[in-house]
Amino acid sequence: MSSRVAVPLPKAYRLLNHGPTVLVSSAHVGRRNVMAAAWSMPLDFDLPKVAVVIDKATLTRELVEASGEFVLNVPSRQQAALTLAVGTQSGRETDKFEKLGAGLLCVHGNPLRGQATASMVGAPLIEGCLAWLECRVIPEPHNQQRYDLFLAKVVAAWADPEVFSNGRWHFPDEARRSIHYLAGGSFFATGDAFEA
Amino acid sequence: MSSRVAVPLPKAYRLLNHGPTVLVSSAHVGRRNVMAAAWSMPLDFDLPKVAVVIDKATLTRELVEASGEFVLNVPSRQQAALTLAVGTQSGRETDKFEKLGAGLLCVHGNPLRGQATASMVGAPLIEGCLAWLECRVIPEPHNQQRYDLFLAKVVAAWADPEVFSNGRWHFPDEARRSIHYLAGGSFFATGDAFEA
Repeated sequence: MSSRVAVPLPKAYRLLNHGPTVLVSSAHVGRRNVMAAAWSMPLDFDLPKVAVVIDKATLTRELVEASGEFVLNVPSRQQAALTLAVGTQSGRETDKFEKLGAGLLCVHGNPLRGQATASMVGAPLIEGCLAWLECRVIPEPHNQQRYDLFLAKVVAAWADPEVFSNGRWHFPDEARRSIHYLAGGSFFATGDAFEA
Repeated sequence: MSSRVAVPLPKAYRLLNHGPTVLVSSAHVGRRNVMAAAWSMPLDFDLPKVAVVIDKATLTRELVEASGEFVLNVPSRQQAALTLAVGTQSGRETDKFEKLGAGLLCVHGNPLRGQATASMVGAPLIEGCLAWLECRVIPEPHNQQRYDLFLAKVVAAWADPEVFSNGRWHFPDEARRSIHYLAGGSFFATGDAFEA
C-alpha cells in the first residue's frame, strides 16, 4: 500500500524530468484502463504541462479522448512485470485491473484506504506507484490525429513521501526505484544520483 | 575520442526510449550552438520521429528554426558537467564549443578525426557522446509557437559501438552511462539493466 502527499504544481515536472516509463490510467462512463508509455515528457514548468504518445489502436486512446483526462502513474521496479503486462495486453479484451491485480489507490471523489484526498480526475490512481500526475487534455486534434501526441495540463500531483519529498527523489531501496523501458521486456532502473 | 557506427533507423528510438537527457546541437550560416534538453522523447518508430522542447529565449531556437535541423546527442556521465554548463550558459554571449571545450566529432560534409561518414545535417555531432540522432524539423508552427515543441524526423542515427550495438545499450563502465537530469545540478545515471 502506498501513501501519498501532494506535490506543489511548480515541482510536478520533477516527477518526469528524469524520463521514467509511466502507466497511463484512464476511465470513462464505467470503463477504465491502464497502459504503459515510455514516450512521455514534461512540456512546461508552471503551470505544468506534459506530452505523451497514445496509439490509436488502444482502449486508453478511446477513454482519454472521450473523458479528456488521464493520470500518469510512475511505477517502481517492483512493478516492472505489471508495467510490461499492461503495455502488451489490450484493455479491449480484459479488465487489466482485475486480471493483473493492479490495485486502485484512489478514484474520483472517493479516496480509498484512508487516503485523505480524492483525485480531481476520473482516471484512477494506481496503487504501489511512486508518484502520480493528474492530467486534463489540451485539445489539439491535429497532434492527436497525425502524431498520436497528447498535450495536457497537470491539475494535481502526488508522490509517495518515502521516495519523493521537497522536490527531490530519494529512493529508499532497489525495489522502489523508478524504471526506464528499453525494448523486448528490458528495463533500466534509475541509477546513482550525483551532482555535476 | 568516440567512434561511431550507424544505427538502423527502425532501432533509433532505442537511443532515447529510456529517457536520457540530451544535448541539442545546431548550426546555421556559420553560427553554431549546443544546449541541454531534459525534455525530449521518441514520437514514432519507423520512420523514426522525435519531439523536443526548445525555449524561445535560446540561440538554439533561432538556429533550429532557421536551418530546420538539429542533432540530439546523448551525453555520458563524464560529460555531466559539460551538460550542465551548456544548459545554463547562453550561446548568444559566447561560443560554447570554444569556451567549454565541447569537441566536434563530425560536421556536415566533413568527417573529422578519421570517421568514415559525414553528417547529413548542418548541426555538428558532439565528440565524446554515446549516440547521435540527426533530425530534420517537421514544420508545425502552432506547436513551436505555443508550446516551444519541435517535432522532427530522424534522418540518420549513430552510436559508439562500445556502448550501443545490435539495438541494445551495454554500458561498459560508470563513466559511460547515459544520464537523466533532475534539477539544480542533480542527475541520475542510467542504472541496472534487468528483464521484467
